[in-house]
Amino acid sequence: MIDLRSDTITKPTEDMRRAMYEAEVGDDVFGEDPTVKNLETKAADILGKEDALFVTSGTQGNQIAVLTHCQPGNEIILEEDAHIFYYEGGAIAAFAGVQTRTIKGDRGMISPALLKKAVRGDDIHFPETGLICMENTHNRAGGAIVPIDHMRDVYQVASEHHVPLHLDGARLFNAAAELERPISEFTEHTTTVQICLSKGLGAPAGSIIAGDQAFIKRARKWRKRLGGGLRQVGVLAAPGLIAMTDMATRLKEDHIRARKLADGLRTLKDLQVVNQVDTNIVVVETNNSNKSVEVWLNELKDKGILAVPFGPTTIRLTTHHHITDSDIESTLAAFNQIV
Amino acid sequence: MIDLRSDTITKPTEDMRRAMYEAEVGDDVFGEDPTVKNLETKAADILGKEDALFVTSGTQGNQIAVLTHCQPGNEIILEEDAHIFYYEGGAIAAFAGVQTRTIKGDRGMISPALLKKAVRGDDIHFPETGLICMENTHNRAGGAIVPIDHMRDVYQVASEHHVPLHLDGARLFNAAAELERPISEFTEHTTTVQICLSKGLGAPAGSIIAGDQAFIKRARKWRKRLGGGLRQVGVLAAPGLIAMTDMATRLKEDHIRARKLADGLRTLKDLQVVNQVDTNIVVVETNNSNKSVEVWLNELKDKGILAVPFGPTTIRLTTHHHITDSDIESTLAAFNQIV
Amino acid sequence: MIDLRSDTITKPTEDMRRAMYEAEVGDDVFGEDPTVKNLETKAADILGKEDALFVTSGTQGNQIAVLTHCQPGNEIILEEDAHIFYYEGGAIAAFAGVQTRTIKGDRGMISPALLKKAVRGDDIHFPETGLICMENTHNRAGGAIVPIDHMRDVYQVASEHHVPLHLDGARLFNAAAELERPISEFTEHTTTVQICLSKGLGAPAGSIIAGDQAFIKRARKWRKRLGGGLRQVGVLAAPGLIAMTDMATRLKEDHIRARKLADGLRTLKDLQVVNQVDTNIVVVETNNSNKSVEVWLNELKDKGILAVPFGPTTIRLTTHHHITDSDIESTLAAFNQIV
Amino acid sequence: MIDLRSDTITKPTEDMRRAMYEAEVGDDVFGEDPTVKNLETKAADILGKEDALFVTSGTQGNQIAVLTHCQPGNEIILEEDAHIFYYEGGAIAAFAGVQTRTIKGDRGMISPALLKKAVRGDDIHFPETGLICMENTHNRAGGAIVPIDHMRDVYQVASEHHVPLHLDGARLFNAAAELERPISEFTEHTTTVQICLSKGLGAPAGSIIAGDQAFIKRARKWRKRLGGGLRQVGVLAAPGLIAMTDMATRLKEDHIRARKLADGLRTLKDLQVVNQVDTNIVVVETNNSNKSVEVWLNELKDKGILAVPFGPTTIRLTTHHHITDSDIESTLAAFNQIV
Repeated sequence: MIDLRSDTITKPTEDMRRAMYEAEVGDDVFGEDPTVKNLETKAADILGKEDALFVTSGTQGNQIAVLTHCQPGNEIILEEDAHIFYYEGGAIAAFAGVQTRTIKGDRGMISPALLKKAVRGDDIHFPETGLICMENTHNRAGGAIVPIDHMRDVYQVASEHHVPLHLDGARLFNAAAELERPISEFTEHTTTVQICLSKGLGAPAGSIIAGDQAFIKRARKWRKRLGGGLRQVGVLAAPGLIAMTDMATRLKEDHIRARKLADGLRTLKDLQVVNQVDTNIVVVETNNSNKSVEVWLNELKDKGILAVPFGPTTIRLTTHHHITDSDIESTLAAFNQIV
Repeated sequence: MIDLRSDTITKPTEDMRRAMYEAEVGDDVFGEDPTVKNLETKAADILGKEDALFVTSGTQGNQIAVLTHCQPGNEIILEEDAHIFYYEGGAIAAFAGVQTRTIKGDRGMISPALLKKAVRGDDIHFPETGLICMENTHNRAGGAIVPIDHMRDVYQVASEHHVPLHLDGARLFNAAAELERPISEFTEHTTTVQICLSKGLGAPAGSIIAGDQAFIKRARKWRKRLGGGLRQVGVLAAPGLIAMTDMATRLKEDHIRARKLADGLRTLKDLQVVNQVDTNIVVVETNNSNKSVEVWLNELKDKGILAVPFGPTTIRLTTHHHITDSDIESTLAAFNQIV
Repeated sequence: MIDLRSDTITKPTEDMRRAMYEAEVGDDVFGEDPTVKNLETKAADILGKEDALFVTSGTQGNQIAVLTHCQPGNEIILEEDAHIFYYEGGAIAAFAGVQTRTIKGDRGMISPALLKKAVRGDDIHFPETGLICMENTHNRAGGAIVPIDHMRDVYQVASEHHVPLHLDGARLFNAAAELERPISEFTEHTTTVQICLSKGLGAPAGSIIAGDQAFIKRARKWRKRLGGGLRQVGVLAAPGLIAMTDMATRLKEDHIRARKLADGLRTLKDLQVVNQVDTNIVVVETNNSNKSVEVWLNELKDKGILAVPFGPTTIRLTTHHHITDSDIESTLAAFNQIV
Repeated sequence: MIDLRSDTITKPTEDMRRAMYEAEVGDDVFGEDPTVKNLETKAADILGKEDALFVTSGTQGNQIAVLTHCQPGNEIILEEDAHIFYYEGGAIAAFAGVQTRTIKGDRGMISPALLKKAVRGDDIHFPETGLICMENTHNRAGGAIVPIDHMRDVYQVASEHHVPLHLDGARLFNAAAELERPISEFTEHTTTVQICLSKGLGAPAGSIIAGDQAFIKRARKWRKRLGGGLRQVGVLAAPGLIAMTDMATRLKEDHIRARKLADGLRTLKDLQVVNQVDTNIVVVETNNSNKSVEVWLNELKDKGILAVPFGPTTIRLTTHHHITDSDIESTLAAFNQIV
């Protein structure tokens, strides 16, 4: 099967497996796992933050950020399709007691004017704006890269209102690779950031959150409450280190293949590629075809191609390090046959 | 002063004061206050529901509805300017742990198509849609009446998805009075409803929530946790009874005066009345004038007129039973002088 | 009926009714109700605190204190029979997300040594101790007065650990009246305090919380979220003022009658008065009689006496301003007949 | 160093490392990791439950159980030194909004009579009892085994009151090994159970919760919200499988060594072994010595022995698979020298 459902399905490389096998470990709840410490130090360095913390998933990293930045009765401003709002089970409200205020964005960008208007003033009827969240690349906007200049503008609004800014950078390495800019040029316009070691980077599991030392100290306690304080977790940090270094440099390949896929799909009259394909995600609109998304997915599956629904009439295809040029050709051939 | 800030500022009438003085009372936590029981029975009857509960405010009634209908990790769908979302301090998230999903409406109405799309499917990433909320009349839409047919359509979507519908009817009596329809024609398209006895109805404090018996039984416990279980609260129920009966019939007068006010304001070139003035609220846009909202409010105050800001460049004026025809004329004169 | 179930059943006096009738009111959400302001100012003065806030019930006052002092993940230390823990529906956890750590006390007193041990150290596994709560008089300890010296000792431990101390003083006026000491001698050993205007003081509803200005400002917002922000609430503040002044001075009468009742009950061989009867509460153990609590309560009811169960084998009798010397005699006669 | 601080510090064995290296993996969020599925199936079988779920830690497993069994405003009854209450950061209240009601136990056992009394009746003032939790072996009771008969008695009380019973079985394998009874003889007296694969079983990380299918389905969603939904987590499940099978059989060795250690310590006049040493934990009281716990720990450390404080004057020593007979002798020698 050619599995284009998600870059989350990537399996650890041989290097990663060996790294797990050999990982020097200790009890990380006691702060004694050298591999985790090494990963956290390197991550803080790459992300340009004082300190970093290994967490078991992107969702956990984002939720810890909300729990650490906010108090119940606060409000978070975020794009209306943000992962934190859309895909995290309402955890912001369930655990942190924080209300979500969403703004319709454009390719992951939020109008600074709308943002300013959304920040709450001092009124007994209002929740206090406790956090602004951005996502880069923006998944539901089709892996769109939020430009560094836009990050700067949004961070400036946040700073003027003394509101911290958290970046859900689950796929931030894709943005950095594509623009060939150090990742810290994005993260300097954030208070805290979360990045995923799985997804395109290919580690079996794990994410990083980074911020200043006071933030990380408090985040560590929230991680413990969430059950994310693990013991000899160097076995996950070891492949994470490889993910964050070796794997980060090859992401552009995935983007090239995604664009090749998109170019091919654009030649089919019944389908529309609806996103700009900045990175490794291709979103395909099917409503001009005479097939439902479900039928599309089944027919693709019959031809050895796996994809996921991404809305009532759209399909998402995602490239990653298991996908080759030849897989792209086979995928296009399959689409052609179905059309 | 002519106080057009809100219908919440209305003071109890002589009848209400006498009713408080004479109220037969008991300990309502023991279920022994006859006046409260009488009010609750009458309210359930008027609202066409099995049972009703006195609560101390509209916010408390709405929050109890959310707490009773939902569980943490649920999501509520509501219009993006709904009072529950906009003006209740983020309490939905803070207390009930429920995420808010907002839809931009039109004069308080929500597109049934958008609503259907917003209801969450069964997916491990998604909060469960636990409640749909409507507001009628809709405060931030300028006291707009949401038509009964629209209520029916929305309730049908809710029912198809097995999601309860709560109506924030803080000013539902205004809608019913204006349309000259029994209030139960609105509430039949709801699972539960909250109505305010203060605001236009003039009681010193208090609201009612109504629904089926099982709902009210559980609501009563949430009311206790919120500190809304009071003792000889018949002293508030007594004026509430007058509010719900005698006062409800006179609301149309307030609407006529609001429209007279709006008509007068429409003749002024620097100001725009931006709402349709269905009921007792007039929203005035000032951004074509050369004065800020703050300046407007101060100059009005100097002339004995009180109003409130309703956005960065808008003012809200609200009529109620203390406002006479002559007050409307004085207000228009004051605006004229300022212009 | 002679109603000894609780002092909460007390009905407003003629003075209170008249005060409601005549109350000067305004919209308290706008901060414009002169009677509420007057009550809050007087209450702050009597309680020796910077500021005070009217709330609708003792539960609401206590919960606001917890919400204002604490954050989720904190822990509260309190006596294992404290009202806040025992009778408030688990609201501490449900709304504030705060864990309760209980200590078995002695007549409402907590051993300072046990308290010191219960304060949490700095450890990633531990909730942070966010609040210590006391209750005076202590309801489930039979209306026991917690001595001022004990209050001082506990407050000292709290202060040493930089933990605020909240006093649930629902019946603190009873303690002050009995000891003939100003109430501020108790409250000086607290960070914040809640006192009830209903219960023995006889107002139809309402409580006060008091503390410093910063606390009250934040408390006011939590009150709004709980739905405790009312409009022309001067109608409740007016009888509250009478409760806090005129009624406070007569509480000792209730205590004398309670002790008379207890003395009489002590002569009955089948029953034991298990509390010291410091104030207006008498707790009677029935397990040496051959009747269940339920039978006792029914037989008393048949003779015109109402009481409440207070545990599997105990009954609580409470005196208040409707109970006369003759009622005490009738009650003793009824017990005698049943025995 | 001889590290007796905890069995959590155990490092993965060569077999475990190889299993990680070779693990067949998939995306477990898609339900496609065969190694996790294998582990979950085996765990359900061993624990005698319909279904099981891999979680990243014991804390996460316990918290998921609380979140899945309970609703905000519920109350949990548990022993006053239970890990869930004592060591999980107040997460029960912070995330699940559930109040903790603690009972002083005896070697981890709770009196069924006290338990019955602690279950709440139907009263508007009371939280609903939503869960009873047991812990076996009981950490703070010194690794005490709660007898199967006692488990049965407690479960019967729970069942009579229709309250589910969750067992924190972080070290349940120690109890089963020591008594030479199948673990299912314990778990049949539970609704759900959590067991740790790290601790004595030596896996680098991970726990299992088990219950019926409906429970596990809902638990899976709460795990996702907590950030415990991992991708190729077969790399942790693989060593977990070894932990749960091969390692489980050798635990009795640790107990024998713990008792040898305890026997030796009992000969020292300044120290008291305060627990019965049912399993792998030895608790030592130092208050008859003239050294503080801190001094004891430092002097032991100087001699190559690591232990942890377990209270103001007590030390905990824990045996595990890295501790040999010779380590026990060296430890006793060190204690002797210090004395």
